[in-house]
Amino acid sequence: MKITSVNNELVKETAKLLQKKYRRDCFLLEGEKCIEEAINSGLEIVSLFVEEDSKLFINKDNRIETTEAVLAKISSTDTPPKAVAVAKKLKRVWSDSYKKVILLEDIKDAGNLGTILRTACAFNIDAVVLYGDTVDLYNPKCVRSAVGNLWKVPVFEMSDLSCFEDYERVATLPKSENTIWLNEYKPAEKTLIMFGSEANGLSRFLKNFATKNITIEMSDKVESLNLSISAGLIMYKLAF
Amino acid sequence: MKITSVNNELVKETAKLLQKKYRRDCFLLEGEKCIEEAINSGLEIVSLFVEEDSKLFINKDNRIETTEAVLAKISSTDTPPKAVAVAKKLKRVWSDSYKKVILLEDIKDAGNLGTILRTACAFNIDAVVLYGDTVDLYNPKCVRSAVGNLWKVPVFEMSDLSCFEDYERVATLPKSENTIWLNEYKPAEKTLIMFGSEANGLSRFLKNFATKNITIEMSDKVESLNLSISAGLIMYKLAF
Repeated sequence: MKITSVNNELVKETAKLLQKKYRRDCFLLEGEKCIEEAINSGLEIVSLFVEEDSKLFINKDNRIETTEAVLAKISSTDTPPKAVAVAKKLKRVWSDSYKKVILLEDIKDAGNLGTILRTACAFNIDAVVLYGDTVDLYNPKCVRSAVGNLWKVPVFEMSDLSCFEDYERVATLPKSENTIWLNEYKPAEKTLIMFGSEANGLSRFLKNFATKNITIEMSDKVESLNLSISAGLIMYKLAF
Repeated sequence: MKITSVNNELVKETAKLLQKKYRRDCFLLEGEKCIEEAINSGLEIVSLFVEEDSKLFINKDNRIETTEAVLAKISSTDTPPKAVAVAKKLKRVWSDSYKKVILLEDIKDAGNLGTILRTACAFNIDAVVLYGDTVDLYNPKCVRSAVGNLWKVPVFEMSDLSCFEDYERVATLPKSENTIWLNEYKPAEKTLIMFGSEANGLSRFLKNFATKNITIEMSDKVESLNLSISAGLIMYKLAF
């Protein structure tokens, strides 16, 4: 199939996925690598736009050859990628067998979220929970930052945390008499690690919900670490 | 002092600092927090633009009240900050007393560089070396990502690495028979840790220059970690 007009109905429908409110069932994959990872992970590809005469994804279903102008219209980057696909979101069901879980509260930076998901996948985290007012998981920047790992770790939006009653619930906080250093921390078998937003940290509710508090050792020259760095250090500790 | 026109000469000169070629002696600081950190660190502030009737930096030298349009013109973010300053670059001299040094080769992502500098500062790294074709340290995005820590750790652009002859020189590489796991790694007293670009890894030259190779443990579901996460994990290990 070939589409050359930016005013084509399918192109217009696809471009809508750049906005959160239209990403109910589907989302955008930008770039060859990301699409390849999605296909390899078994995601359902609804449509797959590539440059005219491209050799990419040559035998795939729903493949559409198109112009650079169309690729620019349906992508979020300054330089349009050589391929853009529409994929179906995965539906996940919470499992009691999840033992290592990360919770992110009010996280606003899509790049941070993507990086944390990529790291969570690398360090065998069982699930990631988005709590409070967070950025959309399927935001194109988040999909890009996760570099094909968005769908490898199950992610859940939750408002009720009762499934964590029997977990050790760990808050990461600045040093006080109630915190232990990361170096001294020994993870329990079932662990929920909670991170607040870069701007405000954890809410009072989640601080009270915690059963253990840890602090990452750091110089007092610095006010805080980047959220994805803090999360990376603690996830590594959970894993190895 | 008050400036209301976007065509004012000082405004035009300041806006030029958004381009690398004009950042020979000075660079831009965007936002209240970043400027505050710079002032507290003793950086020389050449000019300091704030919104009209702003209470910010009220008694500072070289303070200029201005319009939102001017702030938009001299800043790089979508939403203009409430204050923008021009600061003098610090001149640094290499010291033989540096014991923990990070080298970044061909790093292109200003956000990653800023995050790595912030983390280096948190984990008491003595110096950071930029090697090869790297992004400009004074790129506004890098200044922002470093969140006021850009000038707290000395950064050097180098093409000659002979000062590292007596260091343990560590390459971070994918697992092979010549690498040890990060968990088993015990840093030497004088250590240079080298990181390649996200896209290409370390060059052959630096791989040969290395005296030790380490690998970060990770799931084979993931191809690699984000560069700033890898750097964060190893710098933490160097420090604690």
